[in-house]
Amino acid sequence: MLAYAELTAFLKLAEDAALLAPTLNDRAALGDVAATEYGHFRVLRDKLSSLGVDPEEAMDPFVDAIDAWHAQTRPKDWHEALVKAYVGTGIAGDFYREAARHAEESIRRLVDDVLTDEGRSEFAVERVRAAIEADPRLSGRLALWARRMVGEALSQGQRLAAARPDLATMLVGEEGEDLAEIGRLFARLTEEHGRRMAAVGLSASG
Amino acid sequence: MLAYAELTAFLKLAEDAALLAPTLNDRAALGDVAATEYGHFRVLRDKLSSLGVDPEEAMDPFVDAIDAWHAQTRPKDWHEALVKAYVGTGIAGDFYREAARHAEESIRRLVDDVLTDEGRSEFAVERVRAAIEADPRLSGRLALWARRMVGEALSQGQRLAAARPDLATMLVGEEGEDLAEIGRLFARLTEEHGRRMAAVGLSASG
Repeated sequence: MLAYAELTAFLKLAEDAALLAPTLNDRAALGDVAATEYGHFRVLRDKLSSLGVDPEEAMDPFVDAIDAWHAQTRPKDWHEALVKAYVGTGIAGDFYREAARHAEESIRRLVDDVLTDEGRSEFAVERVRAAIEADPRLSGRLALWARRMVGEALSQGQRLAAARPDLATMLVGEEGEDLAEIGRLFARLTEEHGRRMAAVGLSASG
Repeated sequence: MLAYAELTAFLKLAEDAALLAPTLNDRAALGDVAATEYGHFRVLRDKLSSLGVDPEEAMDPFVDAIDAWHAQTRPKDWHEALVKAYVGTGIAGDFYREAARHAEESIRRLVDDVLTDEGRSEFAVERVRAAIEADPRLSGRLALWARRMVGEALSQGQRLAAARPDLATMLVGEEGEDLAEIGRLFARLTEEHGRRMAAVGLSASG
């Protein structure tokens, strides 16, 4: 799931960079985030292959949910693209870290390595903060946009967890069937999201 | 010029991978080529910055020609995308190598390093060959497609060389103003293209 998420993040960020960046330096900066995601994908694909798993087969069950999320969260302008790069990859990262908590040590370390932020959030945070300072009216619209992205992420996550009990077990351990436990996990994800929103100068409550 | 070409190649290849790859493994393989181009861009951008040049300003004069080439060579299907990845990056590489021949040693080495193929042409060659074996009618269409890409590349190159005598001088040395010399350079590019076409199982004459 993380492999397909990284491959898709790479392609979507590249698309946003090509279509929405106002300057070549901005295009290069978001391109940098995209290329980093590809590097993460490569690590995960190689790990799958080394386990004797075909990456395509392994990714296939998660294609619909991740594609649906991107279809629902297509940024309309450069600021939405920046907020998506920061908030979207942030909440996705928290989700995969939670999923890896119950995995074996070597997988947990791999996931942590792949999700290392490498300073890319700084790029988006600085630009969004500056844009809001220059035009405070942006703040409400971008806060709503971030809320919607998180809502769509939780909705896709819930759909997957309902359809795949094995994934639910992975997320919350032996209490996998306990929907309340899934609810608490989602609450933790929402809290972390609130911290990121504050960092970028947006109110999580919209 | 090479920096903008690499940045754009990265974004266009990512787009082709997202839109045209028939399987996830194919998408990942073309994504790999795209991410490699980004790595090349990063090297060139850092070199420009280290020379005290703003990358955006340095790339700006070449945006129109390179964008026009991509607008004229948008692949319609996966096989066209593969041929573009192989033939398009091939002829572009020859062009930049020629341009670097008259540059100082350190720049020449940098360009050679950036243009190292890293085995990515093998991926496209194998798949195109296999596709033509399976359906020999593909051969004529793809040969025409490759011809058109090269024609567009030479046409954009000629436009640039006419508009920028400094670039022409860089390409053919002191005889920069000699259009015949430019013609001979383009003949060399076309010969190299013929060799690539043969490698992929296509006839350069269409």
